[in-house]
Amino acid sequence: MMKIAVLGTGMVGQALAGKLAGLGHEVTVGTRDVAATMARTEPDGMGNAPYSGWATAHPAVTLASFAQAAARAEMLVNATSGEVSMAALEAAGRDNVAGKVLLDVANPLDFSQGFPPSLFVKDTDSLGEQIQAAFPELKVVKSLNTMNAHLMVDPTQLADGAHSVFVSGNDAEAKKTVSGLLESFGHTDVIDLGDITTARATEMLLPIWLRLYGTMGTPMFQFKIVR
Amino acid sequence: MMKIAVLGTGMVGQALAGKLAGLGHEVTVGTRDVAATMARTEPDGMGNAPYSGWATAHPAVTLASFAQAAARAEMLVNATSGEVSMAALEAAGRDNVAGKVLLDVANPLDFSQGFPPSLFVKDTDSLGEQIQAAFPELKVVKSLNTMNAHLMVDPTQLADGAHSVFVSGNDAEAKKTVSGLLESFGHTDVIDLGDITTARATEMLLPIWLRLYGTMGTPMFQFKIVR
Repeated sequence: MMKIAVLGTGMVGQALAGKLAGLGHEVTVGTRDVAATMARTEPDGMGNAPYSGWATAHPAVTLASFAQAAARAEMLVNATSGEVSMAALEAAGRDNVAGKVLLDVANPLDFSQGFPPSLFVKDTDSLGEQIQAAFPELKVVKSLNTMNAHLMVDPTQLADGAHSVFVSGNDAEAKKTVSGLLESFGHTDVIDLGDITTARATEMLLPIWLRLYGTMGTPMFQFKIVR
Repeated sequence: MMKIAVLGTGMVGQALAGKLAGLGHEVTVGTRDVAATMARTEPDGMGNAPYSGWATAHPAVTLASFAQAAARAEMLVNATSGEVSMAALEAAGRDNVAGKVLLDVANPLDFSQGFPPSLFVKDTDSLGEQIQAAFPELKVVKSLNTMNAHLMVDPTQLADGAHSVFVSGNDAEAKKTVSGLLESFGHTDVIDLGDITTARATEMLLPIWLRLYGTMGTPMFQFKIVR
């Protein structure tokens, strides 16, 4: 069991924090402003219930500032939206994240031109790489960013889990740690794509994910690599 | 049965022309310079055997200039490399392509910076859209660009064909024509993503396709959308 900080209080952060706590990890959720997060009573822009209600239902999970959450954790999860990921990690503090594994599930979505969003970095660079470059002392592993939050933490909900999840990162040990977590969630087909530059490939899956969501009318689908 | 022009003499053009001819279609392969194509005796830059040998083994398939091939066809297939697709269609001639369905299987790969290639158009535009915009009189349907040439035409080689193929296009009838062709090849899961702007999504699958090719050491894999 690990001490894990989940940065981000939205749907993805809640799903991951809830699952990790359920598996027995000691989970702290990190947020920019604890008082503001707890005071919010309205759904967020994506229609998600406010954090406070979720927190009541998950008493084992602590809420703290980004810095406090990161300081007490052995491992970090970036579940913030891509646009604010870098600011969240800056707020977490360079000393508090140094040497730790960061599971990065964020996508570089740019909603400024409406729906579907475009990507604010792509193809020749990625958010995963940007984070790794800005925080060389972190062991960044990109994963889980190619599926809905429910399927991230409960893959057997769909086709008994017969679908694929990717990992990208420079540190073999860190990828092993993340792969172990993914398997503890129920993922059975973990594909190691290579170093963190391969995060370009999985972040660029978002456009087809978004189009499929539109076509299918549900986010409960998944990529499987048939071979 | 249809009269079909396959533009492009490389591996993808050969695979599609051979399959279509085998199914009884009247196939003409289009090239920039017939004499030069037939005179080539060296493998191309990708290591593919020269066209002349393939042509000998496929006597039912005619070789002609882009313009002649397009003129006699009811339907067109763009199997040129993405960088030269626009030039090939210009050479085919606006009058010769007008009103016809174009199955566009090309990808906007840019090898100028080495391997893996980047995309010369992406995210907010696509090669499919560029072709549709440049030739508004064509009915462009993007498809098959997300898999190896062998699997394009013989999907049951892998997992009995239990994987997915996407179509994008503005014209419903044209998409029906293409979907019918795909089904005649053995594809069973044809997903209509929507209008031609959704070609952005499938062209952006190339980066992960290329990384998976590197990881797996074989191009015989496919995307399946599990739902």
